[in-house]
Parts: sequence; C-alpha cells; structure tokens
Amino acid sequence: MKSIITISREFGSGGRSIGRLVAEKLGYRFYDRELVEKVSAESGFSPEFIEESGEYASAKSGLLFSLATAGQYENGGMSMHDRLYAIQSKVIEDLAAEGNCVIVGRCADFLLRDYKDCLHVFIYADMEHRAKRIVERYGEKDKSPRKRLEEKDQKRKVYYKNYTGRNWGEAHNYSLCLDSGILGIETCADLIVAACK
Amino acid sequence: MKSIITISREFGSGGRSIGRLVAEKLGYRFYDRELVEKVSAESGFSPEFIEESGEYASAKSGLLFSLATAGQYENGGMSMHDRLYAIQSKVIEDLAAEGNCVIVGRCADFLLRDYKDCLHVFIYADMEHRAKRIVERYGEKDKSPRKRLEEKDQKRKVYYKNYTGRNWGEAHNYSLCLDSGILGIETCADLIVAACK
Repeated sequence: MKSIITISREFGSGGRSIGRLVAEKLGYRFYDRELVEKVSAESGFSPEFIEESGEYASAKSGLLFSLATAGQYENGGMSMHDRLYAIQSKVIEDLAAEGNCVIVGRCADFLLRDYKDCLHVFIYADMEHRAKRIVERYGEKDKSPRKRLEEKDQKRKVYYKNYTGRNWGEAHNYSLCLDSGILGIETCADLIVAACK
Repeated sequence: MKSIITISREFGSGGRSIGRLVAEKLGYRFYDRELVEKVSAESGFSPEFIEESGEYASAKSGLLFSLATAGQYENGGMSMHDRLYAIQSKVIEDLAAEGNCVIVGRCADFLLRDYKDCLHVFIYADMEHRAKRIVERYGEKDKSPRKRLEEKDQKRKVYYKNYTGRNWGEAHNYSLCLDSGILGIETCADLIVAACK
C-alpha cells in the first residue's frame, strides 16, 4: 500500500477533484490549499503569490523567464521565486515524512522521485474537455478558454522544466497517467486507489 | 465498456504479457503474433520481416532512415516499408471493425485514434526493470541489456515518428499509461480491465 500519492495535473483536467476523492477513499490527508497555507506560514509570502508563482513561470518562455527573474534577487543571492521553491520543497518533504497523504502539484512528483512508498500520478485531458471544465468552474473571461489553457500549460511547462530539468507530461516520470476526459473523474480516482494497493 | 484495446509498449516492459492477460480476463481476441500472420498472408512478406520492420525503423536516425529506405522503391513508388505499413494498417482497421480485441503495437493507437470505442494504453518501465526482464526472457547476448534496449527504443521511436508524426511515449496520446516496473504485470492488467468498464 503506497502511503504518499502525488498528483500532477494539467489545468482544467480535474486533477484536484480526483486528488480529493482519492484522499477521501483512502482516508489520507489532502494537501492542496492546505499546502499553500503551510508555505505561506513558513515563508511570509501571501497565498495569492504562492498560488501564482509556486507552479507557473512568470513569463511565457524559459529565456524570458530567466531574464525576467534575474533582477529579483534578495539577500543571499536567491530570487523570490527560488526562495519560494526552496520553502515549498521543504514543506512537501515534511508532509511526505508523515505519510498517508495526497499532494497536488508543485513538483512533488520530482521532489519525492526517490521515495519508494510513493505513487506518482499525472492527470490530463484534451483541450475540449478542459475548456468545458474551466468555463463551468471559473466562468467565461475575456480570453477564450483555449487561449487561457494554452497560456497556463506553457507557464507550467516552463516552471517545471526550470526547476526539475524534466519535460512536463512525459509518461516516464509517473507511475500512472490518466486521461480524465476519456475515463471520467470517478474512474480516475478508483484506478488510483486500486493502483495504490 | 470499450470493445477495442490497443497496447503500445516499450521493449521489455511486459506489455505483450499484460495484453494477453487483459484479453483473457475480458474474453477478447488477442492480436500480436496472429496479427503478424494476417499481415504475412495479405502481403506475402515473411513473418520475420514483419516482426522486424513493422515496428522498427531500419536505421538509427530519422534522416538515416529516410536515406536508407529511399532506394527501396517497388512498382507504384512505395518502399517495401511503406507497403508493409499500408497493409498492416488495413489489417488493424479490419480487426477493429470486428471489435472485442486487444491489439499490441504497430501504431494501432494512432491508426484507431478516432475510434470512440477504443482504450489506448501505453506500458513502460525504467531501464533496470526492462533489462532484468529481457535477460530472463531472451537470455544474455553480446551487447549489454541496456545497449539492446536503447537501440530498440530508438528504432521504435523513429518508426513511430516517421509514420504518425507523433512523439513516442507522450501521455496525451493514450487513455492511460502504466509503469509496469512499479505496478507489476498483474496490477497493470487489472487496471486496464477496470478502465475499460
């Protein structure tokens, strides 16, 4: 029985809902917003800053990202983003040490890659399913759902590459990868629970 | 209930054994060697040629592959490899039309990508698990297991890219992706059956 489950997910794929369901089914703690709050308490950064900068690159490309963050150094030569990443990493490792939890996002798959007791899951779906879901959950905005998703995807991909050196969404980084658009939220949760046992 | 399951797999990951188990559990037909025999009957190519050329590029890189096959044209301007691909594709589409089957490899995931009634699965494992498995099944050879796997991976990747335009092993091409090294052969089969329902 795996005692830690990390869930990496594409924006709009329902990964967070799946994570919550899995935690309920297994009686595990669920860390998503609670993780943000812990990081906020440790770092002094606002939850909004952590939500926005703890998973997304601050510009659209790796090069722009490096240039854009290059000026933001504080004492000790660390950028604010690097400091956030370091604190977030420590919080995730502390949670993992306690076990029996589901952790959503924030490169937890990479941070806990050598933990034997860990199941790493990736949740994704095609553009159509995700667009429908974000409009249902977050409403219409000025930008088209497709444009919003493409921007989020790109920023998360750059963030992930920047901090882990890996390519986002490569099957090899996970124990199982599930298309929530094809399989549905409930089935994804059931498969993760089954895989865990 | 999905009536067609395609299984794409890394060499040495046990994808074929998983496919056979899934077919047994669901009472579906299993097409792996039987597929080779059907293609052989339709094309006149030997089973050995189909085994070797129906999933693997004939040289180590895309460019070399194009150059190497450029001279092998027959009547009608098709290379032997392209002709094999065309016949293999037709056989796979005919099998899919009958339904209730598991098809292993041979770009079936791509050929049947628009079939609603289809579950596309990718099976993979890390180098260590696969190396152990190929030595157990195929014995020691002159080349190290790692070298053998790297060559097979590279040839399959090039073949797949050449005929589908897609990148091999990208989660988005599949409904679910399973690490057989982490999850084990039996669990993978059970998860596929559960996902299918």
